[in-house]
Amino acid sequence: MTVHADTPAVERQLAQYRDVTYRALLGQLPTREPRRYLYDLISSQLSHVGKGLRPALCIATCRAFGGSIEQALPSATAIELLHNAFLVHDDIEDGSLYRRNRGTLYVEEGVPIALNVGDAMNAISISSLTENIPVLGADLAYRIFHEAQHLVLQSVEGQALELGWTRDNVFDLTEDDYLRLVLKKTCWYTSIHPCRIGALIGTAGTIDADRFNLFGFLLGAAFQIQDDVLNLVGDRNQYGKEILGDIWEGKRTLMLVHALRECSADEREKLGSVFSVSREQRTEQDVNWVFRLFEHYGSIDFARSTLRQVVHAALDEFDVAYRDAARSADRDFIRALIPFLGDREV
Amino acid sequence: MTVHADTPAVERQLAQYRDVTYRALLGQLPTREPRRYLYDLISSQLSHVGKGLRPALCIATCRAFGGSIEQALPSATAIELLHNAFLVHDDIEDGSLYRRNRGTLYVEEGVPIALNVGDAMNAISISSLTENIPVLGADLAYRIFHEAQHLVLQSVEGQALELGWTRDNVFDLTEDDYLRLVLKKTCWYTSIHPCRIGALIGTAGTIDADRFNLFGFLLGAAFQIQDDVLNLVGDRNQYGKEILGDIWEGKRTLMLVHALRECSADEREKLGSVFSVSREQRTEQDVNWVFRLFEHYGSIDFARSTLRQVVHAALDEFDVAYRDAARSADRDFIRALIPFLGDREV
Repeated sequence: MTVHADTPAVERQLAQYRDVTYRALLGQLPTREPRRYLYDLISSQLSHVGKGLRPALCIATCRAFGGSIEQALPSATAIELLHNAFLVHDDIEDGSLYRRNRGTLYVEEGVPIALNVGDAMNAISISSLTENIPVLGADLAYRIFHEAQHLVLQSVEGQALELGWTRDNVFDLTEDDYLRLVLKKTCWYTSIHPCRIGALIGTAGTIDADRFNLFGFLLGAAFQIQDDVLNLVGDRNQYGKEILGDIWEGKRTLMLVHALRECSADEREKLGSVFSVSREQRTEQDVNWVFRLFEHYGSIDFARSTLRQVVHAALDEFDVAYRDAARSADRDFIRALIPFLGDREV
Repeated sequence: MTVHADTPAVERQLAQYRDVTYRALLGQLPTREPRRYLYDLISSQLSHVGKGLRPALCIATCRAFGGSIEQALPSATAIELLHNAFLVHDDIEDGSLYRRNRGTLYVEEGVPIALNVGDAMNAISISSLTENIPVLGADLAYRIFHEAQHLVLQSVEGQALELGWTRDNVFDLTEDDYLRLVLKKTCWYTSIHPCRIGALIGTAGTIDADRFNLFGFLLGAAFQIQDDVLNLVGDRNQYGKEILGDIWEGKRTLMLVHALRECSADEREKLGSVFSVSREQRTEQDVNWVFRLFEHYGSIDFARSTLRQVVHAALDEFDVAYRDAARSADRDFIRALIPFLGDREV
């Protein structure tokens, strides 16, 4: 990367906003029964925290536009809980075995109970948006509710595309299809809506939130492309998920789309047959062959090069989206997040 | 039954409220992509309608207290869509093969896509509650939003209990445990909240909605006990689900709780081993043995006798809950629903 992040400073700020979010989150969980089959499992899920990128973007954007942590907190916790609910369901849908360095919930507790835990987390996250009413007033709270609804629908639409392409082994995909998928399955909920909602709160609803759509798309795309790369070449303990898991799960990544374009007809046919069977029927030999194909055609380097371009475009768009936010620690933090997400190892 | 329902009249009214609900429901589905892996599947699910009990209770209660169909419709459609979302996830969780006389969605489309379709239906149902704001005003709309949140959380709590008891083969259960399960997994969303929400709308938020809790519990319990009975002795084509499916799935029904209390130590031990394995490992011989055990100990007659008592108690409680609703076709319809739900074959 030509632009390097001040990693320790970014990580400190991420941790601070993550911790305030998780304190609020854990504090709002019901303490009643049933604990063993529901609420204890939610607490346990939330005790293995991720980066906290989404609540940090929401809180920092709110503060960059003049708002406070307290104003952003109900929305930030709702977004982070929605994210965790998505993960529980995604892991079932993708057949993922590991996350945050431990077995996924459905592996530990079985699909039925894990699915239901995800439903409960979804419901609680929507409830926490009603806390916006006394904090922000009914009009702005209602507007944020609509933002959250758009966030959820875009995410399930993206998930539908990815699951459908995987199930039906769809191969006629271009980089544009990949970016459209990433916009839907990742960007709206990871970056676009956290920025939009933070700015709406910080400006008491006066900003045109659409100005964050392109910046949020580029930031989310950088995050997802680096995720695709780490899935292939990351450090298992830092990344926390199964290395080569995307190949095992038949994911349509930027590397796969690139390799499909570059490879020979024979290789394309072999890719088709490797991905036509279920995860259980795929062999380690096949998975390693796909990885070597990516290396052979420079697909990983292609993804890294695309990532660099996306990071630079995001830096340019940052200046547009945050043009009238006065210089502040929060504004600097958001800008520093851009190269950080492109460089991250975790 | 000593009290018989005017079945054709009840069915006509159910069909009328169901049809207006489904017209609204289908009209509010997004028409955009992705269709094949998401929205077409939702439309298809909704084209095989059930009884429409929940929206009918909501609309009829609203009208019985002076409101209109139009005022109740956004809430009625939200409740019916939530119900359909629950069914899609429940069928995955329970491993159910048939519903409404066809294969369940996850059997047809696979678990990943079906799970995601359920998530989308949940999200759309919550969205449709925001339509209450222009119709009912922000205060009442937010109150109904809270009702819906309570409905969802109670339902997932009930689901957690049932799934946990099934997975861990919990056997030390009494009739009280069964009724507590039914209250949570069935009654809040099937009857208590539809009545509460309908009455809140009909009275512009002035009624104390708690007066419907006992009536709704009894009505929902009658519905669930008859469902347990139909699952054993119903007509496959009318019932639409697999006969003896509850035994295949290891459900804690009123008959099972009764038989566990009545049977010998040896039989209890055999019940334990039959239910200790997964559905796939259970044999038809074992399932039939459980059914004969229920017959031998009069467990089905016990359930029917309990059902009669619940229906009579519900009729008494109806007079309390609807005491100041003037005589009307809607009030009569709700009263007639009580024996109808206890007698139903579908």
